[in-house]
Amino acid sequence: MNEIAAFTANTLNTHTYTNTGTTLLPNWLKRCAENTPRQVAVSTREVSWTFADLDQQASELAQQFATLGIQEGSRVGVLASNGLPFIACVHALMRLGAILVPLNVRLTLDEQLWLLQDVRAMALITDEHYTIRADEITHHSPALTRGTAVWDASSDRVRLQGVAMSPTAPLRAEIDLSAIQSIMYTSGTTGMPKGVMVTYGMQWWNALGSALNLGHQPEDCWLLCMPLFHIGGLSILIKNVIYGIRIAVYEKFDAQVINQALREQQVTIISVVTVMLQRMLAALDAEQGDGRYPTWLRCVLLGGGPAPRTLLEDCARRAVPVVQSYGLTESCSQAVTLSPRDALRKLGSAGRPLLPVQLRIMHEDVVAQPNQAGVICLKGPSITGGYDHRPEATASTIQDGWLATGDIGYVDEEGYLYVLDRRSDLIISGGENVYPAEIEAALLSHPEVIEAGVCGEADAQWGQVPIAFVHLQAGSALTMEALLEYVSTRLARFKQPRRIYLVAELPRNSSGKLLRRELNKLLPAASTQEPM
Amino acid sequence: MNEIAAFTANTLNTHTYTNTGTTLLPNWLKRCAENTPRQVAVSTREVSWTFADLDQQASELAQQFATLGIQEGSRVGVLASNGLPFIACVHALMRLGAILVPLNVRLTLDEQLWLLQDVRAMALITDEHYTIRADEITHHSPALTRGTAVWDASSDRVRLQGVAMSPTAPLRAEIDLSAIQSIMYTSGTTGMPKGVMVTYGMQWWNALGSALNLGHQPEDCWLLCMPLFHIGGLSILIKNVIYGIRIAVYEKFDAQVINQALREQQVTIISVVTVMLQRMLAALDAEQGDGRYPTWLRCVLLGGGPAPRTLLEDCARRAVPVVQSYGLTESCSQAVTLSPRDALRKLGSAGRPLLPVQLRIMHEDVVAQPNQAGVICLKGPSITGGYDHRPEATASTIQDGWLATGDIGYVDEEGYLYVLDRRSDLIISGGENVYPAEIEAALLSHPEVIEAGVCGEADAQWGQVPIAFVHLQAGSALTMEALLEYVSTRLARFKQPRRIYLVAELPRNSSGKLLRRELNKLLPAASTQEPM
Repeated sequence: MNEIAAFTANTLNTHTYTNTGTTLLPNWLKRCAENTPRQVAVSTREVSWTFADLDQQASELAQQFATLGIQEGSRVGVLASNGLPFIACVHALMRLGAILVPLNVRLTLDEQLWLLQDVRAMALITDEHYTIRADEITHHSPALTRGTAVWDASSDRVRLQGVAMSPTAPLRAEIDLSAIQSIMYTSGTTGMPKGVMVTYGMQWWNALGSALNLGHQPEDCWLLCMPLFHIGGLSILIKNVIYGIRIAVYEKFDAQVINQALREQQVTIISVVTVMLQRMLAALDAEQGDGRYPTWLRCVLLGGGPAPRTLLEDCARRAVPVVQSYGLTESCSQAVTLSPRDALRKLGSAGRPLLPVQLRIMHEDVVAQPNQAGVICLKGPSITGGYDHRPEATASTIQDGWLATGDIGYVDEEGYLYVLDRRSDLIISGGENVYPAEIEAALLSHPEVIEAGVCGEADAQWGQVPIAFVHLQAGSALTMEALLEYVSTRLARFKQPRRIYLVAELPRNSSGKLLRRELNKLLPAASTQEPM
Repeated sequence: MNEIAAFTANTLNTHTYTNTGTTLLPNWLKRCAENTPRQVAVSTREVSWTFADLDQQASELAQQFATLGIQEGSRVGVLASNGLPFIACVHALMRLGAILVPLNVRLTLDEQLWLLQDVRAMALITDEHYTIRADEITHHSPALTRGTAVWDASSDRVRLQGVAMSPTAPLRAEIDLSAIQSIMYTSGTTGMPKGVMVTYGMQWWNALGSALNLGHQPEDCWLLCMPLFHIGGLSILIKNVIYGIRIAVYEKFDAQVINQALREQQVTIISVVTVMLQRMLAALDAEQGDGRYPTWLRCVLLGGGPAPRTLLEDCARRAVPVVQSYGLTESCSQAVTLSPRDALRKLGSAGRPLLPVQLRIMHEDVVAQPNQAGVICLKGPSITGGYDHRPEATASTIQDGWLATGDIGYVDEEGYLYVLDRRSDLIISGGENVYPAEIEAALLSHPEVIEAGVCGEADAQWGQVPIAFVHLQAGSALTMEALLEYVSTRLARFKQPRRIYLVAELPRNSSGKLLRRELNKLLPAASTQEPM
């Protein structure tokens, strides 16, 4: 038997192999409907749908979509509020292998038109709240196929109005993890929004990474009051069917309503941003109870930017199980999360990367030392592979698999992330990301504006609001009022500057780059005109 | 903006993309050591190791392995009892990207030699209990590199005796899910054992599928008293570091010890086979308590063949949270599991496939109807891609991604699997799979044996034991005693027939195929000689 050792590792090349190029899973919703058909999947104010209901809904709406010509790979804009039509659309598109492109409902007509064109959408689906906007959009883009998804109380189903079902539509029983589930638009330092490619695999890895960190209980109920057109909300719809748990979906955030829901719906997990949690606690105090939540609420997942320490301490006092997290569209929501067991010991930290995620801080192109601040970089299967049809943006953002977020932070000796600042120029207003470059571009599109700079200003209600500084053409008589009016059709309301200041020049570095962090210094005396 | 609709789905081929060919994750153990360094990872009778301990242990042992020449892709036999040396070896090999080949400690010298040769092992690592066997093995295979891993109480570390560490060994910080983690030998209907390729990805998908079904609680403790050389035991070592939970490892199964451990170690999950659970309940009754387990025991995961209904009903009476499951080496342990919420409603069923798994029953090459029996087939990323260097066996077992298990069962209208019989000829003795063809081959290797047939006989203690029927050469004076003695060096004790019957001929079908199911009919009168 001497020949045994003749086969050394070096003579074998079979130590890795790949079964197939892609990983196929059974469709998540379909599987839930088979496992637990009678369990409640989604509850809203109007209805409770079981997994069997949701599954049937997805198939039927998919058959209507097929009639519209929607098929594998089709890019479909969805403009709808948080409700049954949106939820049904998400699952129906998955059933066809079509790509969801959710539209931020707060965007202006111009912004939505630009986005639909940029993503090469072939159809636009709205709910009944956005039919007027849909009219406007299709007036400008008549070739866009249009559908209106409406919940019909009598059948308890969402239907596309006036569209027959295609019974022969090729519905997919499997999910290919490498396929794109959605394209989510987000801006960057460059100003123009870019479409982040979100694959099924990213959703899967994010959901599983979160479950390994927070624990998974088949009886969990996750409350969804974040917009479904952002990754933070959408990813809960997906966890719904990966975990097979119940979600309670709210159209809008109302602190009193949410506080009541936490009790009445036996909610165990809720995702919120700072401003929501602050309002919830204020509403809780107004109730004059004991200022606490029920014990079954096991996780308040807090995202959307660094939380004030006072808020975290208030939560600790009330035993609110707040779990800080850090994530972005490119990481399919949370990527770094403070485990509940570290909540008090590491107060103020965003925690440690979820299992699929690797984290490092880059300082001047070198991996930073512990406690040394730099750019937060992420890698792993829950991180996007890039931006849709923007190879340059992809190449400049992702190198060797590492995504440079642009956000600034450091890790301590134990590897816990502390986010110092979202991307240096990013303004977070009521949980929405506001990109100064995008506002500046809108201001600069006015022929009399020569320079424009935008930064955030602290605001008690929204966390931050954008303010702008402009330098006008010599002799211009443009009023700031008229300029605000001008940008109001070009920018969603939450992006419109609270005030615009007229200045003689903007702070720039030696190479002419705008120094947005210096803009605030212009405030006390520099304005030559009263702000609006 | 009319050009929007010009970009239809058909003109885009970017709706799927793959980031890279393989999925890389941070090393699971390393990640646990970073997340929760001070949390207990493994407790045995002797020690408790934190995740930091286990991580350091893995790195140090890997550096000793590197000195022996073990490297990426090396195939390394491990022959050790359930204990710290085995556990340390598993993680050290992962750190090097080397392939674990666990040896069943009950196999004979000949069987182990054959297996090491078949797998092209370059090294054999044993613990101190198997040094004599290691001497025998290396006597026959002198080129096999050998190491003895021993736990040293003073340093509280497992060390290879007399081997220095290679500080420059290339330790891997990442795990490639497509790489082979272990090769696990299992027999089939063909008689000779085959090496099942078990990838990191199979382990990952199995662990996550299980967590989604059973729930995952970061405070879980999983009791491991199954042999580590089988997939059922090994997969718990991997869940240990994927979940980041504590495991309590026992060298041997002793019902009283395990019952005590469930209380004292705050065990929440235990994996057992039927015979173990029966003994545990008997021991529980002997204690004259209330005949119940602590409430924190939330899952008794029961594998290793169909469980008797009386046992399941006994468990229901005692509120023992028994969860039936079905799996095999090729499916990286459990593939089908009865969710706790269905335990009573579907008593006797093995449940529904875990999330990554697809299940179907094939009856005469057609997918069976509900309630129609046939061969159980499995598909998904937790199912093996095949047998090591056995393309024919792989091709005949796996077709279009579907693994034909050979086991017989049916699914009901709700998709719940009922296992009627493990592979028709398979004998399960004390949780060990015993393959008649392998025993028959050993009997037939005796020059005076013309025909041999083996089947199982019910046994109160072991569930089943093998019995054999032989047809001898005319004029042979071979006694059954001598024949038993003959096979005892060729077959592990649990494979040795309890009795051998001398018969004039064996039941065969028209094409001469042995009908093992008919063998039992020979029992009452057919034996021409008293059994031994």
